[in-house]
Amino acid sequence: MPQPKDRIPEKKRRGLVLVLTGDGKGKTTSCLGMAVRAVGYGMKVVMIQFIKGSLHYGELDGAKRLAPEFELIPMGKGFVGIMGDALPFYVHADAAREALAAARERMLSGKYDIVILDEVNVAVRLRLLDLEDVLSLVREKPENVHLILSGRGAHEEVLRLAHLVTEMRSVKHPFEIGIEAEKGIDY
Amino acid sequence: MPQPKDRIPEKKRRGLVLVLTGDGKGKTTSCLGMAVRAVGYGMKVVMIQFIKGSLHYGELDGAKRLAPEFELIPMGKGFVGIMGDALPFYVHADAAREALAAARERMLSGKYDIVILDEVNVAVRLRLLDLEDVLSLVREKPENVHLILSGRGAHEEVLRLAHLVTEMRSVKHPFEIGIEAEKGIDY
Repeated sequence: MPQPKDRIPEKKRRGLVLVLTGDGKGKTTSCLGMAVRAVGYGMKVVMIQFIKGSLHYGELDGAKRLAPEFELIPMGKGFVGIMGDALPFYVHADAAREALAAARERMLSGKYDIVILDEVNVAVRLRLLDLEDVLSLVREKPENVHLILSGRGAHEEVLRLAHLVTEMRSVKHPFEIGIEAEKGIDY
Repeated sequence: MPQPKDRIPEKKRRGLVLVLTGDGKGKTTSCLGMAVRAVGYGMKVVMIQFIKGSLHYGELDGAKRLAPEFELIPMGKGFVGIMGDALPFYVHADAAREALAAARERMLSGKYDIVILDEVNVAVRLRLLDLEDVLSLVREKPENVHLILSGRGAHEEVLRLAHLVTEMRSVKHPFEIGIEAEKGIDY
């Protein structure tokens, strides 16, 4: 990237593979936060959501404020197998595969600095995606792209390919003490 | 808050106390992500930074995109006691106490839905702040405000007052394998 003359030339970017996993809050939330910071640096960020559908209006409306540098693309079909999910498994699996193809295309397009695969670890754990297809995508990552894979239960093969792994561990959660989900905090 | 007639009336908010702690990445980042989501719901958010100064341009420029609903206010003086910090301790301590007073005023103002005290746990651990002053602020929290306290090494008395605690645990970090900090990822 050409730099204006009054800036110190930057070191060449080393694109990292980050994994955010664990059962605690803050994985998807951190992905959104990284988008805030990156957009502040003029970087381009795309976040593909593998499980979430289009119901999270707060997230989508907030994300629009970071457009066009940030694109948030919900490609999931919502909760899988729980919470009144009436969709057959293959519909979820097809959606996850489409999401992976969309993520791969964008990662290789040269248009993005950061590509976020939100809840992709969950899609692997639920066998909506083949682990090998996700590992292949990680191995194909261009040198200058940061790739982020979020979701609880990340596979150890995914962890092995990562440069940075953070586990969000739930120490105390209000559901345990009978408090319902709160807008802006839980969704 | 009055609701447009075509919306389902919402349950009364139960303002929570959240603590984000641990040695891993994602605490401040999650705070920024919560701001994205909350702003998407039209909520008002203020984030006071207790340690960071005004050097994090990406964060500040990104945050401006969420203004005016989101205000990010760096009130720290930067790293304390490390990384070439030349400031006497009392300068850091004064700054932290000013930050706490500013946070308290905003929390009680009725103007904010979410008040974030970024790295306040670090300020307590470094004795820039008295633990009791932070606990008093938490106890004064109005019912309908969400209060978030971030930073590694949260004091157990703070954890006791929290409804939700997430520990960000570093499982693998690129500094360990000799990779430098990356813009948009580490800062």
